Amino acid sequence: MSQKLTKEQTIDRYPSRLADKPGRSERKDPVVYSTWTADSPLTKEQSDFYEQNGYLFLEDFFNETELNVWREELSRLQEAYRDQEASHVIREPQSKEVRSIFAVHENNDIFQSLSKHPRLVSIMNYLLGSDTYIHQSRINYKPGFTGKEFYWHSDFETWHVEDGMPNMRALSCSIALTDNHPYNGPLMIIPGSHKTFISCVGQTPDNHFKESLRKQEYGVPDQDSLKALADENGIQMPIGEAGSVLLFDCNVMHGSSSNISPYSRSNVFMVYNSVENKLREPFSGQQPRPGYIATRS
Amino acid sequence: MSQKLTKEQTIDRYPSRLADKPGRSERKDPVVYSTWTADSPLTKEQSDFYEQNGYLFLEDFFNETELNVWREELSRLQEAYRDQEASHVIREPQSKEVRSIFAVHENNDIFQSLSKHPRLVSIMNYLLGSDTYIHQSRINYKPGFTGKEFYWHSDFETWHVEDGMPNMRALSCSIALTDNHPYNGPLMIIPGSHKTFISCVGQTPDNHFKESLRKQEYGVPDQDSLKALADENGIQMPIGEAGSVLLFDCNVMHGSSSNISPYSRSNVFMVYNSVENKLREPFSGQQPRPGYIATRS
Repeated sequence: MSQKLTKEQTIDRYPSRLADKPGRSERKDPVVYSTWTADSPLTKEQSDFYEQNGYLFLEDFFNETELNVWREELSRLQEAYRDQEASHVIREPQSKEVRSIFAVHENNDIFQSLSKHPRLVSIMNYLLGSDTYIHQSRINYKPGFTGKEFYWHSDFETWHVEDGMPNMRALSCSIALTDNHPYNGPLMIIPGSHKTFISCVGQTPDNHFKESLRKQEYGVPDQDSLKALADENGIQMPIGEAGSVLLFDCNVMHGSSSNISPYSRSNVFMVYNSVENKLREPFSGQQPRPGYIATRS
Repeated sequence: MSQKLTKEQTIDRYPSRLADKPGRSERKDPVVYSTWTADSPLTKEQSDFYEQNGYLFLEDFFNETELNVWREELSRLQEAYRDQEASHVIREPQSKEVRSIFAVHENNDIFQSLSKHPRLVSIMNYLLGSDTYIHQSRINYKPGFTGKEFYWHSDFETWHVEDGMPNMRALSCSIALTDNHPYNGPLMIIPGSHKTFISCVGQTPDNHFKESLRKQEYGVPDQDSLKALADENGIQMPIGEAGSVLLFDCNVMHGSSSNISPYSRSNVFMVYNSVENKLREPFSGQQPRPGYIATRS
């Protein structure tokens, strides 16, 4: 990089994949970056819940009319990519069905407009205490019958090591296009786990992202740390009807089981990052991942 | 077979794996084979619930003292078979950890005694309207982190085709040795599905059982039939603490998701069959499965 970095910018505050043993350290960043006032876009209770648990579930956020537009666009895109390979389209390992389409906030007018939804953006800006931009977006199909599990992970661990996100000042927003039930592979969250950073074992291989979007192998937290976090905090499955919005902190430990139910669990997924937390060189020392996975501006 | 069979005995009342297309037919057998009286070992409400839904969940059936004996025996057996191959010991496909040990009602004094537990046996005999015997038994470890999903199936479909069980007059009894949560891969049941027989497509290969105990490929119901059953009846996840007992009819459609939680879902699993419903030659026309999977007396 040609520009000079300050000392703060060059320090790796959350080292991972460097040691032979897993590690556990305290979060060094705030969770809610704004001070709550009566004008804030969340209630005091909602803001406090997010701070303590690392997630917030907002039911009935969008209505059926809005949802139908996105569902139709989702179907159209799934059909369009059925037989067309593209690097930003991810398929199921075995069935080869379209699983996710990335960068929809850039490539698609409808989802770009959704990413700028005023009510959403005001909540993101409040929680992250600044203007925000989309770090990553995708639509996830999560088909019925064959939806695969996704093992426990902290998004931040990967975004930090592989994308060079310096601090914990980002969050994910998942908009449910279908109903979530306990039996169709909903997101499982360890509440409160966002306040602890679990550093993972081992090195990141080059081009790891190609495999990791389908199946995690590196940046995987160890079983002892996961059990300790779950024993301390429990496990929650925020579920509700289509139109609900799940917000969760970039460092909260989460995963999902397989979905053998007949019901898909489709969603629009957008990661908001603070403009004060833009990406630098990956802390792995390797090449950054492509722009459709991690926006570099 | 040397003995002469009556016409009733030779007719395949539930043909499956014979046609190119899946089929759906009405159950031809009762569900509860006794008439309820005040002396019955279930309440009227429990008996009616089982008849209508095809399952019954009995909380606090066993106490901690009883459970601890079985848990210790389970750990002892898991340790004993860690490095010892045995045909009745089934391992996880990838990790090779012990997943299930079969025929514990024959090979193990503690579990044999449990299989004859008077309160349990009186319920089985009531529901099946006759004396009963153990068709199959096993202990399931269902480990945390790596527990694999088990796809939808009717046990009866397999027991009929592969073991020669003539009629729907058997039920499964699962005794929870660990707590069941929505997030550790509990059994999912389509209530009411026991009243419909879904015949599956295709032939059964020879020695299918070796693979099917780890991963189902034959005797798999089709997606359209499953969706129709779930749309009509919903999906239930009976969950509760260790010591609970789940009874479910031999033909109820059930399965389970993967278990990435840190918490194992161990249970003792016993299938009771009516002495009036003993096995004949498999309806597939193939060799019967080994005695540790299906008791032939």
